[in-house]
Amino acid sequence: MGNRVFNFSAGPSALPVEVMESAAEKMLDYEGSGMSVMEMSHRSKPFEKIIQETEANLRTLLEVPDDYAVLFVQGGATLVFSMVPLNLMTGSGKADFLITGSWAEKAFSEASKFGDARAVASSKAENYSFIPKVSKDEFRPDADYLHITWNNTIYGTKFPEAPDTGGLTLVTDMSSSILSERIDVAKFGCIYAGAQKNIGPAGLSIIIIRKDLIGHAKPDVPTYLDFKTHSDNGSLYNTPPTWCIYIAGEVFKRLIAGGGIAAIEEVNKRKAAKLYDYIDGSALYSAPAAVEDRSLMNVVFVTGDEELDKKFVSEAKEEGLVQLNGHRSIGGMRASIYNAMPEEGVEKLIDFMKRFEAANV
Amino acid sequence: MGNRVFNFSAGPSALPVEVMESAAEKMLDYEGSGMSVMEMSHRSKPFEKIIQETEANLRTLLEVPDDYAVLFVQGGATLVFSMVPLNLMTGSGKADFLITGSWAEKAFSEASKFGDARAVASSKAENYSFIPKVSKDEFRPDADYLHITWNNTIYGTKFPEAPDTGGLTLVTDMSSSILSERIDVAKFGCIYAGAQKNIGPAGLSIIIIRKDLIGHAKPDVPTYLDFKTHSDNGSLYNTPPTWCIYIAGEVFKRLIAGGGIAAIEEVNKRKAAKLYDYIDGSALYSAPAAVEDRSLMNVVFVTGDEELDKKFVSEAKEEGLVQLNGHRSIGGMRASIYNAMPEEGVEKLIDFMKRFEAANV
Repeated sequence: MGNRVFNFSAGPSALPVEVMESAAEKMLDYEGSGMSVMEMSHRSKPFEKIIQETEANLRTLLEVPDDYAVLFVQGGATLVFSMVPLNLMTGSGKADFLITGSWAEKAFSEASKFGDARAVASSKAENYSFIPKVSKDEFRPDADYLHITWNNTIYGTKFPEAPDTGGLTLVTDMSSSILSERIDVAKFGCIYAGAQKNIGPAGLSIIIIRKDLIGHAKPDVPTYLDFKTHSDNGSLYNTPPTWCIYIAGEVFKRLIAGGGIAAIEEVNKRKAAKLYDYIDGSALYSAPAAVEDRSLMNVVFVTGDEELDKKFVSEAKEEGLVQLNGHRSIGGMRASIYNAMPEEGVEKLIDFMKRFEAANV
Repeated sequence: MGNRVFNFSAGPSALPVEVMESAAEKMLDYEGSGMSVMEMSHRSKPFEKIIQETEANLRTLLEVPDDYAVLFVQGGATLVFSMVPLNLMTGSGKADFLITGSWAEKAFSEASKFGDARAVASSKAENYSFIPKVSKDEFRPDADYLHITWNNTIYGTKFPEAPDTGGLTLVTDMSSSILSERIDVAKFGCIYAGAQKNIGPAGLSIIIIRKDLIGHAKPDVPTYLDFKTHSDNGSLYNTPPTWCIYIAGEVFKRLIAGGGIAAIEEVNKRKAAKLYDYIDGSALYSAPAAVEDRSLMNVVFVTGDEELDKKFVSEAKEEGLVQLNGHRSIGGMRASIYNAMPEEGVEKLIDFMKRFEAANV
């Protein structure tokens, strides 16, 4: 372990220590293969076993129904922002969006290149401090889908529940909350997530999509951006990000061994509640996010004094509590407490916050 | 080291042992950061240092001129097959192609989706056993570029020199030969390569492109597929594949310490010559590739008897010489001897080939 810090980075972010220890141990010889996972052909038997188990374990964890495909792709959520409209906005050519933060804006703006994207509601004027409550009557009934961003990493909000779409296909970016709490996959047509928060190393994205939504891209779509390319080939159309898939698989195994999503959800709720409770009772700190829309993963807070915020981040770092700065676009503080952040890290943070408050109020 | 094998995989393929040993050692605490490279924000100081050094070292190794950008992207050469026409086939909308193997075919077929792609010559009828010699007069003078595949991984051929394009911009897929021999970057408008042969782990592609060729994509290009997106943001528009970039950087450092490309080219030529010399003098094996077009990286050979080929691959594996099977589309044998394959591996292979020949002729 050596000089490990508590890493509150919003992503790429902390990984389970045990997963990395095992990866280091097997670095030169993965399970008797005589080579590293990084050196394996993606069409070799050991790697085929890795990718199949990784998919199977993800299906187990999220109880993914059989009529959904699981795709492993590259390019981050950013590339999926293009893939979704190119594959799904091909019926009426319309899609509706709820704008709850910068990533939702980006998904919306990208879709606007390819069809009639419409922002139904936005909380931008209030610094994205809440999730707009929208009735199903506000959506266009002929839209190909409604797109939402489940957890807003920068602003520390999340959807408390899936909106009633009135029958529209619901598509969600779940990059910063996937695997943190139970979800009912069947409520969504498509769930996607970049790996670098709760899944594994950056360079992998996961798309969970109802199979009937695959195969509707136009003929001139770039081959890599067609969902069908990946679903027809078990995510092995071309060389996938093998190391990222391997580490993701190890993370999934560990989650299953720990009791699955229900168990980690308990821990996550406890971690977040401790932190929010302390903030709410504090004379120094406040959390701008609406209470009912608070993220379990990204706890955003401020002192109200920019200089003091900077001092906080700097002094916390000296105590081994790192990457507590808010997103460069909004400043303040953000404690990202993904699955791999142990409760001890949250307790150490609260302890530091108390001492900092006592010294600065 | 333990039970390390000699891994002749065409990609993902062998990596330098020292790079992996160092990565394993620093897995939980990269240079005093208290975290793994996998856990670092891509906007953190230690990672910014990694990506900047990685780019600088690649520039040193390939003597990349200042008027070229170096981009780190995801999606493999497959995604670049779309990016190239979407960015470069936007003048006359025409591009010419030399078809020298399956990957060249794929690059051509993808470009055909986006404009007037023309196959100028192909060696397909002769199983891609040679590189067609084409005069510059055969290219369309108003084509936006000529595309070639420098090294043909499946068939074991490579361009002995860059073709005279008569002034056309030359674009090349160099996935399986980059960093193996000296090249004059200035002869090319764009060089691209998937990492998983001579660079690092799968999940990273590198694009080296003359800066005046950036910024010509149409407005409706997917944001991630626009070269400008990556060049304007130092390959940090969105989260890059941080671990892959780190390992690539370690590979580059080691190449520089070993004397750069000139030094590794010497070794590569020696390794390939030993193997081809033995094959040419053998009564059992033959190499189908034209002598003047032989690859330094992928040595393709056959016994002429499919059953015997299978026996060869299987018995070699028992001796720790693995992944010697030819590509699933053509069978036979293929020894991929990238930079990370030590000369000892080639000698062990030749030794086995001799014994196998003695036992089977």
